[in-house]
Amino acid sequence: MNDALAQAYPLHIATLRQRADAALEAVGREHLVIPAGHPIPKHLDDMDYPFAVHPAFKQWVPLLNAPGSWIVYTPGEKPVLIYLQPQDFWHLTPEDPNGYWVEHFDIRLIRKWEDARQHLPQDPAKCAILGQSRDGIEDFIPDAPEAVIQYLDYHRAYKTPYELIRMREASTLGARGHRAAAAAFRAGESEFGIHMAYLHAVGQTDAELPYHSIVGLNEHSAVLHYMHFDMAPPARNLSFLIDAGASSGGYASDITRTYAAPEAEDFQALIDAVDKAQRQLCDGVRAGRDYRELHLEAHQLLAGVLKDQNIVDMSPEAMVESGVSATFFPHGLGHSIGLQVHDVGGFMKNDKGDTVAQPDGHPFLRMTRSLETDMVVTIEPGLYFIDMLLARLKERPEGKHVNWNRIDALRPYGGIRIEDDVICTSGDPENMTRDAFAALD
Amino acid sequence: MNDALAQAYPLHIATLRQRADAALEAVGREHLVIPAGHPIPKHLDDMDYPFAVHPAFKQWVPLLNAPGSWIVYTPGEKPVLIYLQPQDFWHLTPEDPNGYWVEHFDIRLIRKWEDARQHLPQDPAKCAILGQSRDGIEDFIPDAPEAVIQYLDYHRAYKTPYELIRMREASTLGARGHRAAAAAFRAGESEFGIHMAYLHAVGQTDAELPYHSIVGLNEHSAVLHYMHFDMAPPARNLSFLIDAGASSGGYASDITRTYAAPEAEDFQALIDAVDKAQRQLCDGVRAGRDYRELHLEAHQLLAGVLKDQNIVDMSPEAMVESGVSATFFPHGLGHSIGLQVHDVGGFMKNDKGDTVAQPDGHPFLRMTRSLETDMVVTIEPGLYFIDMLLARLKERPEGKHVNWNRIDALRPYGGIRIEDDVICTSGDPENMTRDAFAALD
Ligand SMILES: [Mn+2]
Ligand SMILES: [Mn+2]
Ligand SMILES: [Mn+2]
Ligand SMILES: [Mn+2]
Ligand code: NI
Ligand code: NI
Repeated sequence: MNDALAQAYPLHIATLRQRADAALEAVGREHLVIPAGHPIPKHLDDMDYPFAVHPAFKQWVPLLNAPGSWIVYTPGEKPVLIYLQPQDFWHLTPEDPNGYWVEHFDIRLIRKWEDARQHLPQDPAKCAILGQSRDGIEDFIPDAPEAVIQYLDYHRAYKTPYELIRMREASTLGARGHRAAAAAFRAGESEFGIHMAYLHAVGQTDAELPYHSIVGLNEHSAVLHYMHFDMAPPARNLSFLIDAGASSGGYASDITRTYAAPEAEDFQALIDAVDKAQRQLCDGVRAGRDYRELHLEAHQLLAGVLKDQNIVDMSPEAMVESGVSATFFPHGLGHSIGLQVHDVGGFMKNDKGDTVAQPDGHPFLRMTRSLETDMVVTIEPGLYFIDMLLARLKERPEGKHVNWNRIDALRPYGGIRIEDDVICTSGDPENMTRDAFAALD
Repeated sequence: MNDALAQAYPLHIATLRQRADAALEAVGREHLVIPAGHPIPKHLDDMDYPFAVHPAFKQWVPLLNAPGSWIVYTPGEKPVLIYLQPQDFWHLTPEDPNGYWVEHFDIRLIRKWEDARQHLPQDPAKCAILGQSRDGIEDFIPDAPEAVIQYLDYHRAYKTPYELIRMREASTLGARGHRAAAAAFRAGESEFGIHMAYLHAVGQTDAELPYHSIVGLNEHSAVLHYMHFDMAPPARNLSFLIDAGASSGGYASDITRTYAAPEAEDFQALIDAVDKAQRQLCDGVRAGRDYRELHLEAHQLLAGVLKDQNIVDMSPEAMVESGVSATFFPHGLGHSIGLQVHDVGGFMKNDKGDTVAQPDGHPFLRMTRSLETDMVVTIEPGLYFIDMLLARLKERPEGKHVNWNRIDALRPYGGIRIEDDVICTSGDPENMTRDAFAALD
């Protein structure tokens, strides 16, 4: 992978420089300055929260743990990396900058965070400074000009070949974890035990993962943001939903799989039907396609599953129209992904800050842009048996078309979600997640 | 354990009420109000840092994951718990309050965080409100009066029997993890693999542990705050230092052990000598003893080890006097521990904000109070071979009394620390850590 990264990085950095040139021109500033940031201390404590580097910083250099460092870019000049390498006997001295990216930077080593000031541009007013005010030094305080952020956020949706290599690697790591988690599920482990198996196989800690894993057994699969890990396994492991990703050089994967116990043939049939619909939706990740429309197609397909599986006796069209499909599929089809698992810019119409609204009745959709080559999105349809939403449906006229016996039989299994990360290309979509699983076989 | 907690809790809450009465009287306020706090969002992201509850909140109720909740205490009245229990289909509804502590509170369930305002006292000016401004609602903003904080911090050093039960349990969980980690070391695992074994055995995630574990193999044991986990095992596992704790109901344990490979007999002898000194220091945790003096005794004992082990050829007194012992033992002997691993109030002379200075030349000591019954402190002497400090020593006149050949032979082993959590009683000290390990045998 390192050779491929080295080959792809020059174009990556050239692309970032072009974007920075344009963003700076739009606001008439001379330098783009990006702090890595600092760890946030816990209130009244001498402990910090895990460090989270500024996403724009890690886009330039794959340094995820260099708090107090800065990037300074001036059009026409080699970008400067102010690299904080403290030397004290308490901490491991951060390693010297090394690897494929180093030659593209003018690197200034500093020993104390306040020493950065002398390497930063003299006049802050001539800079667009990203970050938060807490990242500032003396007179050099982030102002994060909105026009700059909008420009960069909008263009961040288009991934460079370098970024795609990183995201394929994140998918590979995630798939490895998912395989270990599935084996732990089959071995009857608890949610906590499955989570541990996942971390061990990926080789990343919770803080290194791009998001908090969801590991739900049985009815817990119906809790969309289930953040807990039960220590004790349930009496029987009926079903298992895992939504967990991995990171490579600061880029995320976001993968969901759902499994049934061997004897749960009925639920397995439902998983298979959702899987089929999901593959069809992945095939819709094509340049020119409106993502909102793909989301509505997901409703149509999932409503078809509800009908075929004898859960709701209505036409798919009527289910979508009346909102019945949203009882079972209440979230959005997916989102842009990259430096952040929910990447920025999902609602942007252009790089000037105009936005595209969600379709009526779909407030949770995180992506309304039309798809274009080099975008990466998740495709994550699901079907869930959520008590709160089912109770509301029962009260409505459409409730009488619902096969409540079948629903009661399915409730203990919770729900299903299948989520892949898909690259929109100029030809067929590239499904990084399916490719990663296939490579493990 | 639950029976014991139920029995001990009434006295615990009575103690907290008395302290609150006195703290409020000192500032002439009518109510003590403590927010649990809110999760902190990551910059420009839709993800939060792991939630860390306000330490004062979890002292009243063992709710570690109830953001948006509040405690309101008014002298003479049952304390009020405003408990945020949101109901939405995204998240698991937090469980109903249950357990030994519930009957001691007037519990008000709310569904939205802003609904707390109606249950909070009408006039914020009559309240001492702990927490940060970001925890506030409308006009009800934390002011955290210094005199209240000082009073509560000072008295927090004296643990109630309930708190000691919690801390013994935290020690038991930690010891379990340490045993698993030691086995993983012996099996030749990487630092990351050992860390996973630790988490799995304790049954807690990184965010649930009281602090970031230190897992150092070989020379990494010499990095005092080693925060990294190497993925690959070294060619040979020579030595292993693990500083890792666990939590019970919000109370911490803080345990360090050091191991040598079977063939490393010389280093094992050094471990044994530090262990002997550590036991002697633990025996010094007695009411009336000045912790600063115990720290200086540690220097004396460790200097004796350096002499006996043929590492430095000076009298122990001369080593301590000249600062040579600090080359090998550069940190403090320990600290108060409880709701936070480094508990508050370690420098306080009284509950009015006066402090006790560190002994000259010992800037890293975190505890300068005299020991009293019901205090809990760590005792964590160590000896390390730290390149940066050894290089300085070599330049000094005392450098010629150092056996550099022996030091070079020991460098690859890194260092040694042995840390126990010890209760100061009216009689012999109670070493919770040694007791917890012994109970596993
Ligand atoms: Mn997703
Ligand atoms: Mn996901
Ligand atoms: Mn400690
Ligand atoms: Mn420790
Ligand atoms: Ni959530
Ligand atoms: Ni540190």
